Amino acid sequence: MSKSYPSDSVGLVSPQRARFSEPLPLRCGREIPEYELVYETYGELNKDRSNAVLICHALSGNHHAAGFHTPEDRKPGWWDSAIGPGKPIDTRRFFVIALNNLGGCDGSTGPQSINPETGKPYGPDFPVMAVRDWVKSQARLADRLGIQQFAAVVGGSLGGMQALRWSIDYPDRIRHCVIIAAAPKLSAQNIAFNEVARQAIVRDPDFHEGRYLDHNTYPAQGLALARMLGHITYLSDDSMREKFGRDLKSGKLNFNYDVDFEVESYLRYQGESFSNRFDANTYLLMTKALDYFDPAADHNHDLATCLSQARCEFLLASFSTDWRFAPERSEEIVTALIKAKKKVTYMEIDAPQGHDAFLFPIPDYFSLLSTYLDRVAREGGF
Amino acid sequence: MSKSYPSDSVGLVSPQRARFSEPLPLRCGREIPEYELVYETYGELNKDRSNAVLICHALSGNHHAAGFHTPEDRKPGWWDSAIGPGKPIDTRRFFVIALNNLGGCDGSTGPQSINPETGKPYGPDFPVMAVRDWVKSQARLADRLGIQQFAAVVGGSLGGMQALRWSIDYPDRIRHCVIIAAAPKLSAQNIAFNEVARQAIVRDPDFHEGRYLDHNTYPAQGLALARMLGHITYLSDDSMREKFGRDLKSGKLNFNYDVDFEVESYLRYQGESFSNRFDANTYLLMTKALDYFDPAADHNHDLATCLSQARCEFLLASFSTDWRFAPERSEEIVTALIKAKKKVTYMEIDAPQGHDAFLFPIPDYFSLLSTYLDRVAREGGF
Repeated sequence: MSKSYPSDSVGLVSPQRARFSEPLPLRCGREIPEYELVYETYGELNKDRSNAVLICHALSGNHHAAGFHTPEDRKPGWWDSAIGPGKPIDTRRFFVIALNNLGGCDGSTGPQSINPETGKPYGPDFPVMAVRDWVKSQARLADRLGIQQFAAVVGGSLGGMQALRWSIDYPDRIRHCVIIAAAPKLSAQNIAFNEVARQAIVRDPDFHEGRYLDHNTYPAQGLALARMLGHITYLSDDSMREKFGRDLKSGKLNFNYDVDFEVESYLRYQGESFSNRFDANTYLLMTKALDYFDPAADHNHDLATCLSQARCEFLLASFSTDWRFAPERSEEIVTALIKAKKKVTYMEIDAPQGHDAFLFPIPDYFSLLSTYLDRVAREGGF
Repeated sequence: MSKSYPSDSVGLVSPQRARFSEPLPLRCGREIPEYELVYETYGELNKDRSNAVLICHALSGNHHAAGFHTPEDRKPGWWDSAIGPGKPIDTRRFFVIALNNLGGCDGSTGPQSINPETGKPYGPDFPVMAVRDWVKSQARLADRLGIQQFAAVVGGSLGGMQALRWSIDYPDRIRHCVIIAAAPKLSAQNIAFNEVARQAIVRDPDFHEGRYLDHNTYPAQGLALARMLGHITYLSDDSMREKFGRDLKSGKLNFNYDVDFEVESYLRYQGESFSNRFDANTYLLMTKALDYFDPAADHNHDLATCLSQARCEFLLASFSTDWRFAPERSEEIVTALIKAKKKVTYMEIDAPQGHDAFLFPIPDYFSLLSTYLDRVAREGGF
């Protein structure tokens, strides 16, 4: 069965695996003795290995950023709008790598993997990961693929934090850093939302202190609640008004505690479908990585000093209605970069979609990405 | 044992009860056959019964708005800052009534009360209440107390919605309507937050479809989660930053899933203490009353037409950092009132506390309330 894909699609792709048997020391003081990373690549690595772009994923993302796994797939990878021939991250020019982060639940070693020390799934014993740990594991993957320096490291939200961390920890291995809808650290409100999500999971009686797999069960309700809550923070008040307003599911009020409004039905659906595909321990781990991220903390809370280590150029983008990581949060990074005398391009994009905007092919946004990455490619001579 | 109270306190107060045996027809199409309301009064009703002020409570409020129930009480009523001799709602001039709404859990007939038809607690069979039902029950309480017309009906948040409903449903029984930090209807985002809170409760295995009392248990975890979430929406991002920032509970990161940050500890405490005092079915009921409130819906969604029925004067106040019911939401009411040619005074108060600001004695806010209510009293000749 052959199937044709749009000319700007990377088409059929296959995940690959890389196994690492050297222990990875972690921020928490522990180490992972051995691990696997699952990743995908799109495009071709050029002769001088200078055209690689790393895509870092956000809270619930994975290695499947573009294309299709089977001809039957209805949906492409999570950032297919941005990656492909002729798209902003142009696979005719760039060799694009996307991976599932350590601690994830889509194929890389994580809480669902077997702990070699016990022969049972890690579950809650999987170490708490920090953004710097991910970046270190990504650098090892780059070594494996023979990439000494990335043309660009690109990420949105938590992915943007990884890109920022790359610029600090591996200044010689990144020429451009693209940080979208991120923040230099979480606010108390951000942490508060994460904490309620975590509590929804750990208070689910099916959580069993994270050992639900041993109990042959799953904290589906807690994870669904966590996602429902998260989802509210990904959308803007405006986009919810636009999308749902006060529309009624059945055309009338029920006067009971079932679904009255469309928005309720939508949230329940989002919660269920997420809890069917995601691991609860990974959700906890991802939210803690977000909470802990604060690169300036090692530099007396001076972000400019912290960023003075970087040698790359920066592109930052934020979205006008994003209230999870509002434009002001990106501007904190921009201001620190200017103070640190770095080259930085920044645009606040007028977009109604809230935090989720970073996943949408918004013309101003994609034009910014395209223009910037075109320069990256020209500079690199490819 | 005598104890002295500050001169601006109403001092020791005792709740009173009023029993109503005439059935109350409700918006949902059902009726309550008989019910009790618990209420408190502060100050004295004047001879021509013209100085009464009704205080309407918000989601988790009750009849104990001011003063102390026993000399041992550490905390006064929930709006003690605003009610008392010389305070904005000056009990030397006004006769103030505060009640626990029908469906509440602090003494008025609600889900914890015995259903006369079954001899068991109503639980989930207690009818879903609409704001107009509360207002009708409040009007009956006014009848009982011999009050034909209120000098003012005053409320914040959900309480403000009741005040607004008073102006529409009983135009002859209210001279001034004071609406603080409210909205003419909930947005999709507001409903979404309420829905996640409700789902946290109904998905708690101890909820037993609302019949937890029959099962001798209680959905404490679900209710705590609901409150934690609600609490985030009551505070502003700024006030959380000010109050907690990224302060660590034990001075260091734990690298586990326990409390790292102060804000987490605070939220857990808020959740626990609330779930110890509040009824889960009442919480569901209160959030549905919020979701359903939309007085313009009966007037082709034209708020100005809806408000043209009112005959009172209006005072509205909003708070700059309130993102639950932002100033724009109050301004929708103000704009409609102006269009309907009503007398309206409005102030957006610069305050860092978010939605919770309506409970704080913020100087500009209390000065506005004092000035306005002073005029109300002068007009009334008391």
